Parts: sequence; C-alpha cells; structure tokens
Amino acid sequence: MDERIRRYARLAIRAGIHLQQGQELVISSPVECAPFTRLLAAEAFACGAGDVTVHWTDEAVTRLRYDHLPVEAFQTVPSWLRELNNGSARRGAAHLSISAGNPEAMKGVDPKKPSAYIAASHRECKEFYDALDMGRNQWCILSVPTQAWADKVFPGDSRAVERLWDAILKAVRADSEDPVAAWEQHRRSFQRRTAWLNGAGLDRLHFQNGLGTDITVGLPEGYRFTGGGDRTVGGVDFFPNMPTEEIFCTPDKNRVDGVVYSALPLNYQGTLIDRFHLRFQGGVVTEAHAETGGDALNALLETDEGARRLGELALIPKQSPLSEMGILFYNTLFDENAACHFALGKGFPECIENGLTMTPEQLEQKGMNDSATHVDFMFGTGDLCVTGFDKKGNAVPVFRDGGWAE
Amino acid sequence: MDERIRRYARLAIRAGIHLQQGQELVISSPVECAPFTRLLAAEAFACGAGDVTVHWTDEAVTRLRYDHLPVEAFQTVPSWLRELNNGSARRGAAHLSISAGNPEAMKGVDPKKPSAYIAASHRECKEFYDALDMGRNQWCILSVPTQAWADKVFPGDSRAVERLWDAILKAVRADSEDPVAAWEQHRRSFQRRTAWLNGAGLDRLHFQNGLGTDITVGLPEGYRFTGGGDRTVGGVDFFPNMPTEEIFCTPDKNRVDGVVYSALPLNYQGTLIDRFHLRFQGGVVTEAHAETGGDALNALLETDEGARRLGELALIPKQSPLSEMGILFYNTLFDENAACHFALGKGFPECIENGLTMTPEQLEQKGMNDSATHVDFMFGTGDLCVTGFDKKGNAVPVFRDGGWAE
Repeated sequence: MDERIRRYARLAIRAGIHLQQGQELVISSPVECAPFTRLLAAEAFACGAGDVTVHWTDEAVTRLRYDHLPVEAFQTVPSWLRELNNGSARRGAAHLSISAGNPEAMKGVDPKKPSAYIAASHRECKEFYDALDMGRNQWCILSVPTQAWADKVFPGDSRAVERLWDAILKAVRADSEDPVAAWEQHRRSFQRRTAWLNGAGLDRLHFQNGLGTDITVGLPEGYRFTGGGDRTVGGVDFFPNMPTEEIFCTPDKNRVDGVVYSALPLNYQGTLIDRFHLRFQGGVVTEAHAETGGDALNALLETDEGARRLGELALIPKQSPLSEMGILFYNTLFDENAACHFALGKGFPECIENGLTMTPEQLEQKGMNDSATHVDFMFGTGDLCVTGFDKKGNAVPVFRDGGWAE
Repeated sequence: MDERIRRYARLAIRAGIHLQQGQELVISSPVECAPFTRLLAAEAFACGAGDVTVHWTDEAVTRLRYDHLPVEAFQTVPSWLRELNNGSARRGAAHLSISAGNPEAMKGVDPKKPSAYIAASHRECKEFYDALDMGRNQWCILSVPTQAWADKVFPGDSRAVERLWDAILKAVRADSEDPVAAWEQHRRSFQRRTAWLNGAGLDRLHFQNGLGTDITVGLPEGYRFTGGGDRTVGGVDFFPNMPTEEIFCTPDKNRVDGVVYSALPLNYQGTLIDRFHLRFQGGVVTEAHAETGGDALNALLETDEGARRLGELALIPKQSPLSEMGILFYNTLFDENAACHFALGKGFPECIENGLTMTPEQLEQKGMNDSATHVDFMFGTGDLCVTGFDKKGNAVPVFRDGGWAE
C-alpha cells in the first residue's frame, strides 16, 4: 500500500471529518473501494471512534433496480436506510462519503427515477440531511479511484487507476510530508480571502465572458462567503469536500437576471448535459437549452420548484491546482474545483449571517433557496470577469481574466 | 465469466431460493463477492423479483469493531439492521446468504463478543429468524471463493481461487448441463431415503466407531428425517443449503447419553477447536475437552442453556461427492456435507410431525432443543456404525462402515 494512501486516510479522518473522541462514524462506500474504506475505519478507531458503520453501495445493483422497477419504487426510501441515516444523525455521527462512481453507470436510465429517489431521500431522511446542512454533525466527501472511473478519465491507458490515484492524491495535498498541516495552511488562505469579500459590503455580482455569459446575481443581506472548511455549531472544524478550492456563497434566489453559458459538460445522473445555457428572470429559469442531454436538463429543472433557482455561486481562480492539472474528472467534486460555477437547488444557511440558527421561514425571507436537489454546473473561463457592486452602485473588481483581481 | 458461474447463479435463484414472481429478495454478501452477487441480482430480476436488496458485509471492518469495541457494543443489533431483517421478513422476502469467510478472520477475537452478538441477533431479529425457521420464507446459503478463503484451502497455490471455484461448482452440481434438473433428481433420491427412515418406527439411534464414539441419541415422537430440500408452509420448494448431502433430524434434547469424539476440526468464530470430545448425560453436556481451542468450546457451550444440548443429527455416507473430494474447506456448509455430524443448539421444528405449526411450548414438550446458536461438529468416520432401535428394542441397521446399510 502506497504510503501516500495511508496519509490520505489519516488526513480524511483527522482533518476532513476531524473525528472526535467517542464519536460515531458512518462511511458510505462503493464496494470496490473496500481496501481504502478499511484504512479509514482503522484510522477512525485509532482516533477513538465510538463506532464505525459502513453503508456499502454498488452502482451495478442500483442500475439493475433502475432498469427493472417502476418509478413508484423510487418514491420512498427503504425503511432500514432511513433508520441508518436518521438514527446515526440523532446520535451525532459524522458522515464520510466516498464518491467514486462510473460516470456512465446510469446512462440511459429514465431520469425521473433518480430524481424521485433524491426527493424521497431528502424528505424521509430529513433528520440526516438537516444535521449536515445545519452544521450539527461533521461530514466529508472525498474520492478514490475505481477501474471504471479511471478508464473514463484516462481512456485506453493500462495505468489509468494509478494515474487517477496520482491526480487525486495531488489534488488533496496528500503527496506532501504533512498533509494535515498543509490543509491548515489552506484553511488560513481561504480565511483571508473570505474576510475581504465579506467586508466589502457587496449587494450583487456581475459575471461576463466571451461565451456569452452576462448575468447579475444578488447577494442576501448579511451574505457570508465561505470556503476552505466549515465549523459545526459545536465548534468542530472540518472540511466538507476534499479537495476544495472554491469560495462560495448562497445567492438571493429572487435576484438573478441574465444568461449563463456552460463552460464544461455536466454529468447529471449518468447523462452528459453539454453546451447549454440558462436564462433567468427574477431568480427563475425562464429558458433552458442544451445541445446534448436536454431531457436530463429538463428533468433536473422539474425536480421541484427550487430546482429552477440558484443555491450557490462559487469562485475558483484559473490558477488553482485542479485548474492547472487540466483533467476532466467527470466528477463534480473535482471538476467544480476547477472552474467558477453556480448550482441549481438548495442554498447554504451558513452563507448567511446567523443562518445556521434560523428557521426555514427566516432563511426563505433572507432569499436562501430550498430544494431537494443541488447540482453544480461550471461556467468559469480564462477570460471571466466578475465585478461586485454595493447598494450605491460602486464597482469592486473581483475577478479579471479568470483570476482574483485584488 | 465462466459459463458454469452463470449457471450457478441461475440455479441459486431458480432452485435454491426458488424466487416467486413479485417476491422481494435480500442477499447477504461479502463485498469481495460483488461480481457474483450482481449476477444473482440480475437473475432475480429476470425471474420477476419485486425488489432486490443487498446487505453487504465485510469481515475486515467487523474484525476492527471486535478489536476496538467492548463486549457491550455487541449485546444489541444496530437498529437499521434490525429493520432490514425484520422488515423484509414481514414483507415475505426470500433471503440468500453468501458464506465466503476467511476461516482465520476472527482468530484471537474474544469469543464473548461474537457469542453476545449472535444471542442479540436472534433476540432482536426474531421476526426474521422465525420466518426462516418456521418455514414462512425461503432461504438459501451458498458460497463463492474469496482470495483469503481459497489461500487457506489451497495454501501456496497461485491457482487457489480457480481450484476453489472448481470444487464449489462440482459440489453444487453446476458443472452439469442442466443443474436445475440435477437438483430435482437429487431431491427425489433424498425423498426415497427419508421415507424409509420415517417409516421405520425408530425410537433412538446408537453411534459407534474406532475413535471412541459410543452414544445413543433419542428421537422425538413423530420424528421426521429431512434432507435434500425444504418446503415453505405456503408450498414453495427450496434448498436451504447448496451443496446439501445430509439427511438430518432433530434429537430428543433429553435423551442423549454417552460420548462423541470429533472426527474433523471445528472452526468456531475463527478459532479452530480440534480433537475434542463431549460427554452427555440425560441430554446435557457434562464433560467437554478439546486438545486445541478449549476456551472457544467453552464459550460456545456457555452461549445459553440450549447450547449444551443437541439440536441436530445428520447422516452423510462416505460415498458422497464432497466426502470423495477429500478437501477440508474450513467452512461448515461444505465440511458438514462430508461427514456425519451433530449440532449443539437450536433444533428444527420441521423434523417433528406438524412441528411448523406448533407453539414453542409444544415443540419443547416434544423434546426439540432451543438456543440462540446452532453449531455443527463432525464425528463421522469410514468405520462408523449406526443402528436404530424401535421402542421394543428391535435393531435396524442404518450405517455400516460409514455408508448406508440398506
């Protein structure tokens, strides 16, 4: 076993999840990732885990269910899984999830089925999602290679798995001597940048580039740009995503106007949606067109009312390591950290001052969007220009030529 | 994929489980067995399964929990697993379980922990176990190779997995042209033999061989030797074990007297118990001695009161295919079908006339043993002599020189 991989497992438990003495850990893992998941479990027990439960998943079996069962079968969550998710959340468990899907595993599946399942899952596992979304329990999503995924990223290369490992370990800084320290430094650099944005008194951001994007996105009163890490309401620092290069905020769901053009394909539930644009008016998508995967785009927009509004805006300079690697991972966790993006769907309460202690009604009043879904799509390009404006219309340059203006 | 393996998956679903149109299937599978489990799931859907749920398991994670958590952690079953087992049993799901453990995976584990867990599991998942034990839902245990298991059976052989596949496929008759038909014939040959035993009006069996075994085992009134297959109360034929070569009965728990010597080592929760004997008086073990693994033997006997009494006697002639292969599989499913054996622990209601419709009290009155555990141990040898006696003391030869006497 590569020493970097052991360091990565250690990093995931100690910095990503930041597991506390006696705390329970739930790991969602594809069956193919068993060797790494065992390392995570061993590291968790070495940190004094109260218990470790692995929720094993398998795309091939999921695919068989999608192919053979009617949409009704996906309108509810199996009772045992509801109990696993909500029960562990109630006990304060941290949740680590391994994202390692074959980007084509769900190709051709009727998109109504996964959409129904996502909606059911958020409805029936509300205690679980609330515990993560409202900052009660730590969570972390990270990746390890699987053969099918590696073959998609590096087609025809017999060393595909090895190359994907190299790329992931580099992206998560596990190739350094002391990755836990490297992530602490990473956290501090984000803190400096978010402090600047949050002190700038912005009312809205305007995005423009050569693809045709020309859109203004309002920011809620008391907006909080966040990035590089998170903190539970109990004060435990953790990293929800590894890697993470983005500084993000939750938009005002009612003040989005203009048009945005995709810069990279979006892999949604196994279908590639490519060369698409969305037009917004008063916060709502009023026009959507994709040259490829239009049906999947429409299914996404029809998940629920909130799926037609924005829940995230994220800034990533073209100088980030992932941008520089120039690899298309076909996995949001990596690709979203390579380019500026928006997300359709649920917003982030932690991106509004005191948002984590607000009721859903208060959050709505602040302009935070709600939805069962949250899907990122990339629009950032090397020529992207982002300008902030305060309430009086004074301009603050944020991005110039795809990188930070300051 | 070897065509025999596809036939095996087909056999498991169509004959082993005999899945009914619209019926739900739960598969318990080690993560290493994913390729075969996917074949099973595909075959189940091809048979019209109402749903397929895989309960993935991993010995390495289980082992970490045993090593790091106190015995109290194993005195209860996680609520999600209780819901998975009992909930699916209530819905009438069939249950297929893959037994493919590394025989040494639990070596050195404090035997109190797995014992506590087995007891908790039978207590808290009672609906699940009752549905199987009382013949409401079909179930089937079968095996596929894993690397660790194959390395134990064929040490130092680079073709170990392939050789274990060959042995398993031969043992389950999946190497024939039409395995489903081969199993129908197998069922009929068992029916002839059990009809003879059940018509012989036996009161008890006496076992004797050169190792020192000299023991008399009483049979309950209305005893029913069974073997080669089972039938649910709803009339669905299935095979609970693949392979199966045994004809078995449930003893009268109060009428076991004498001594039995083990003929093969017993792998109990990862510990090998070898060269042991048990002395019975009035049905209860009054003396137990093992040259190896005595602590594990004692832990087994202390599981509960019923663990000190017999729940099964099984007859397998030395001419059976598994006996002839002469491979020590370190797995009860195979090794129990290679030699005559007894089991400590829970008896079989289906081995008493109308037993499946009796209350626990009625079964106890008939002499059926009850326990949270059921552990087979082999005592059959090439010189084993088994003689039946009716109530008047008339002798009926059953086994001579390790094979059927008739």
